[in-house]
Amino acid sequence: MKRASFAKMNCPIARAAEEVGEGWVLLILREVFKGARTFKELESRLPIQPTTLARRLETLCARGLLERRPYQDNPPRDLHLPTPKALDLLPVLIALGEWGNRWLAPEGRLIDPVDARTGRAMDVAVIDLRSGQPVKAGGIALKAGPGASRSTRAALQAPLLLGRTT
Amino acid sequence: MKRASFAKMNCPIARAAEEVGEGWVLLILREVFKGARTFKELESRLPIQPTTLARRLETLCARGLLERRPYQDNPPRDLHLPTPKALDLLPVLIALGEWGNRWLAPEGRLIDPVDARTGRAMDVAVIDLRSGQPVKAGGIALKAGPGASRSTRAALQAPLLLGRTT
Repeated sequence: MKRASFAKMNCPIARAAEEVGEGWVLLILREVFKGARTFKELESRLPIQPTTLARRLETLCARGLLERRPYQDNPPRDLHLPTPKALDLLPVLIALGEWGNRWLAPEGRLIDPVDARTGRAMDVAVIDLRSGQPVKAGGIALKAGPGASRSTRAALQAPLLLGRTT
Repeated sequence: MKRASFAKMNCPIARAAEEVGEGWVLLILREVFKGARTFKELESRLPIQPTTLARRLETLCARGLLERRPYQDNPPRDLHLPTPKALDLLPVLIALGEWGNRWLAPEGRLIDPVDARTGRAMDVAVIDLRSGQPVKAGGIALKAGPGASRSTRAALQAPLLLGRTT
């Protein structure tokens, strides 16, 4: 049974989970970020069925994460280029990958993100630029934003602390 | 058809996508971060079938993201507490939510993360603590880590630039 869509929920995490919270979508974006452009390149780099790949690419284009650009007429073939919306997701994917390196790689870090200019290993962190402090459990609360629905506003009349451990 | 597991892939993003790259898993974690502890609380806050919720909670416990603590004997009932592994994912979820606020909320930001101490809105960014610079497309490359497989090493003999736009 297909689950309910999260796209209408009044929560940016829910909407993001609906948009990219599926394994293949994240891995296709990963390959596009690494430079894969054609269907053939994507197919050769991922253990994915061609029909699944075609469907996911369709979805990624419809959602404005990839853009098609024809590079051949006969037969017609497209390149798949990342949009600004997709590129803006790259830092989140890197942060997710670092979580994977910490918690899901008992054999040692699998891949290291490095500074493209200097080649130095990065120490990736999610921080609050205003305070300069890391964003972390116990230090963050949620408030209703300008686009919040009535029920979100009601639920967040007082800021809600995130990440209590009891 | 169930897709292939990503858990054995030599990539921290693939393993993280397998572990938490499913909508319900992310939303259950979100509710636990917001303070939901019992099955009943989770059920009342999410439009989820009880059987699906039970299955996802089982998975989250098996993966070490939630820990059960009995709070009642008859009938037996458990609290679900976030583990350090789950709490370490919270900053990633916040960064993902900010992407959702930017790209998936045409009505305006839905929810604002604020500094729990000061109440001030946060300006969330993924940065490299070494350089102090934001992690972004065009500025990051990938190198094989100590746990990389032979084929990952072969593919990453030279650092691979991420997020080209052509």
